[in-house]
Amino acid sequence: MYWASGSPPAWRVLLLLAVKGVPYTSKLLQLSREEHTAPAYLEVSPRGKVPAIRDGAFCLHESLAIMAYLDRKHPSPPLFGESAEEAGAIARVIAEHENYLYPALGQIARAVFSGDPTALAGEEPAVRAAVAMLHEELARLEASLALRDYLAGPRLSAADLTVYPSIQLAVRAATRPAAAPLDLAVTPLAARYPKLAAWGARIEALPGYDATYPPHWRAA
Amino acid sequence: MYWASGSPPAWRVLLLLAVKGVPYTSKLLQLSREEHTAPAYLEVSPRGKVPAIRDGAFCLHESLAIMAYLDRKHPSPPLFGESAEEAGAIARVIAEHENYLYPALGQIARAVFSGDPTALAGEEPAVRAAVAMLHEELARLEASLALRDYLAGPRLSAADLTVYPSIQLAVRAATRPAAAPLDLAVTPLAARYPKLAAWGARIEALPGYDATYPPHWRAA
Repeated sequence: MYWASGSPPAWRVLLLLAVKGVPYTSKLLQLSREEHTAPAYLEVSPRGKVPAIRDGAFCLHESLAIMAYLDRKHPSPPLFGESAEEAGAIARVIAEHENYLYPALGQIARAVFSGDPTALAGEEPAVRAAVAMLHEELARLEASLALRDYLAGPRLSAADLTVYPSIQLAVRAATRPAAAPLDLAVTPLAARYPKLAAWGARIEALPGYDATYPPHWRAA
Repeated sequence: MYWASGSPPAWRVLLLLAVKGVPYTSKLLQLSREEHTAPAYLEVSPRGKVPAIRDGAFCLHESLAIMAYLDRKHPSPPLFGESAEEAGAIARVIAEHENYLYPALGQIARAVFSGDPTALAGEEPAVRAAVAMLHEELARLEASLALRDYLAGPRLSAADLTVYPSIQLAVRAATRPAAAPLDLAVTPLAARYPKLAAWGARIEALPGYDATYPPHWRAA
């Protein structure tokens, strides 16, 4: 399992491995040392992206594909649904995350972690639009959690594992001093989005969660 | 089945229904008449997007979710893989399409079909970058088809049905007179990307293909 600290797509896969109790060899790449562009890594992950896996001779990249593969290979517990309706609902939450929340978060995270002052002052229309979209999506998730304990139904699924790292990245972005002028208004999460905070705590209580937490987030 | 003429995500689902031979009631929405924002439609598809389905009391939106649902409900032929490795490869091609080719195509299609002269003259860096990324992705697909008949293996899968409508939209965009200054260089497809053209012809030979073709593309 090749990953990078703080990468939401990598974190999804780590969470899935933890939930399924699949043992793996951890390969933590240091992107600052360009380890993701090394020729040996490009043989595993041709685009030089994390996460990627090697399972015997089989290599795979793209987090959602790795999750689908691991769910077939290690079916217990099933995380992509047992009925067609469950499978559809899980895939819907994942697709909505990929199409709406995650692009908005990416725009915000780039502004915050690059420290771009123009973007952070909310002077770029695209960043302003991303903050609005992020809140619209958080509100949708919050509303869905009023009806059920997990995002796609009464049980933990791949949808929860896909969305959770993004929520944590949003919280982390919001608490960076550089983000203050942007007024992200995501924290404290328990006050802004209490059901999302309680859902997050359920995920943080999963056995094996601690080993998935981005190491460099502990440091700072 | 609620769809709109020329929507690549809707076309994917129509192709899957054709391949599986699932009978359905066609609800072709006229977006120019705002039929997708009507309250009755928002009950089926809360974001007002196409495609969406209603199957008894079960409603679902997001094309990839609908495809996952229909594949579970109507397993023959299996389009999301029989082995874990097949499932992973299919999900990888779909994820790469969603993360790279489709956003680039969206940027180009908005410029071409809106007729924005600044964007079409290639003066917007984002549009220029999108054209470069589109060709990079088309080249990757072309290379993969040198190894196999379909994008994720020797047999037709959901990956092919997901990518095919995007290729057709790229061709259509490239042949619009307004697109001339952008020099998309996608057509003739058989000259630029011969393996993609031959693969497209295999999809066009599928029984039921004709009923999926965007009606307004026939007119003009």
